[in-house]
Amino acid sequence: MIQVVNIAVSGQGLRDITPEISRAVAEAGIEEGLCTLFIQHTSASLLVQENYDPSARVDLENWLNRLVPERDPLYTHTLEGADDMPAHIKASLTAVSLSIPVLNGRLALGSWQGIFLWEHRHHRGHRKVILHLI
Amino acid sequence: MIQVVNIAVSGQGLRDITPEISRAVAEAGIEEGLCTLFIQHTSASLLVQENYDPSARVDLENWLNRLVPERDPLYTHTLEGADDMPAHIKASLTAVSLSIPVLNGRLALGSWQGIFLWEHRHHRGHRKVILHLI
Amino acid sequence: MIQVVNIAVSGQGLRDITPEISRAVAEAGIEEGLCTLFIQHTSASLLVQENYDPSARVDLENWLNRLVPERDPLYTHTLEGADDMPAHIKASLTAVSLSIPVLNGRLALGSWQGIFLWEHRHHRGHRKVILHLI
Repeated sequence: MIQVVNIAVSGQGLRDITPEISRAVAEAGIEEGLCTLFIQHTSASLLVQENYDPSARVDLENWLNRLVPERDPLYTHTLEGADDMPAHIKASLTAVSLSIPVLNGRLALGSWQGIFLWEHRHHRGHRKVILHLI
Repeated sequence: MIQVVNIAVSGQGLRDITPEISRAVAEAGIEEGLCTLFIQHTSASLLVQENYDPSARVDLENWLNRLVPERDPLYTHTLEGADDMPAHIKASLTAVSLSIPVLNGRLALGSWQGIFLWEHRHHRGHRKVILHLI
Repeated sequence: MIQVVNIAVSGQGLRDITPEISRAVAEAGIEEGLCTLFIQHTSASLLVQENYDPSARVDLENWLNRLVPERDPLYTHTLEGADDMPAHIKASLTAVSLSIPVLNGRLALGSWQGIFLWEHRHHRGHRKVILHLI
């Protein structure tokens, strides 16, 4: 089964998409299998990380922003905005696809794991994640 | 087929789990397919890297420790110990899931490839890897 | 279905392999499914990134070369050449496996996404990518 999941984003940051993905898995009625996510963008990415303490997410975002700053004189790809080239680099360092097993009808996430869409640009808009289930 | 593989870890570093994963694939008796691994933690991750010369692993660990040091003044998520926030960042830069084809009843790894669990914290304990085979 | 795809490389850089992978998917005649790629090497990796403007690729390569330079005094694994240890680190920061859904008989890539083999060494030669399709 393949489904396109549309995710609304409002600026840079980690957006918890566990509810949307969990719902799609529940609706598919699969007891045991594998859920693969693929993001159709090059300036946003996927991440499984701690969903409990928001400070971990803040530090993660700040750390990556410091590693890959805007307006680095190295960049020549600057026509699409100051946040564009850093977004491509950040997306390259994280995941475009993720596979999570399904057990007893639910995503087999660890106790503190959530699934996030990491928006690397400042814009508001929508991102498409393709969900494949077997 | 889904199986939970428990991996004992003894402090920070790359732990070769190729034997455990290869055994599970052999026991499943699958000739051709795909083996997907998913780690249920946010402070340890998965890696396929050179398994021959231990110096490559040492350099990889030292390099990542230098890139993501403990006690960085940027961190606000510090309640769970000095090694916790760096562990989340290191896990975010490496893989939570990996998919390796199975050919002729064996994992189709390259000549020098091994599968590693990368423990990013200093503790001893156990980590859970979910193995999915089709 | 499993297929070995041989990719010729001529030195360090991002090599667009979308044509080779798309052809294999088309020849398999699968309408809906999942295409998983696995690279059998530890000094080259896989990436999905922007395929339109070549300047984005140039910046990405230059940025990673600056983050992981050759001849870093940290390295002890130096016998296989100055480009070997940086190649292992770069491969560890990017992907060894990728999964891309197949929809209507084609890879469900976003408008600006291409699949790249990222060669991290300076040599000319061949790299093996295993393609698994369900």
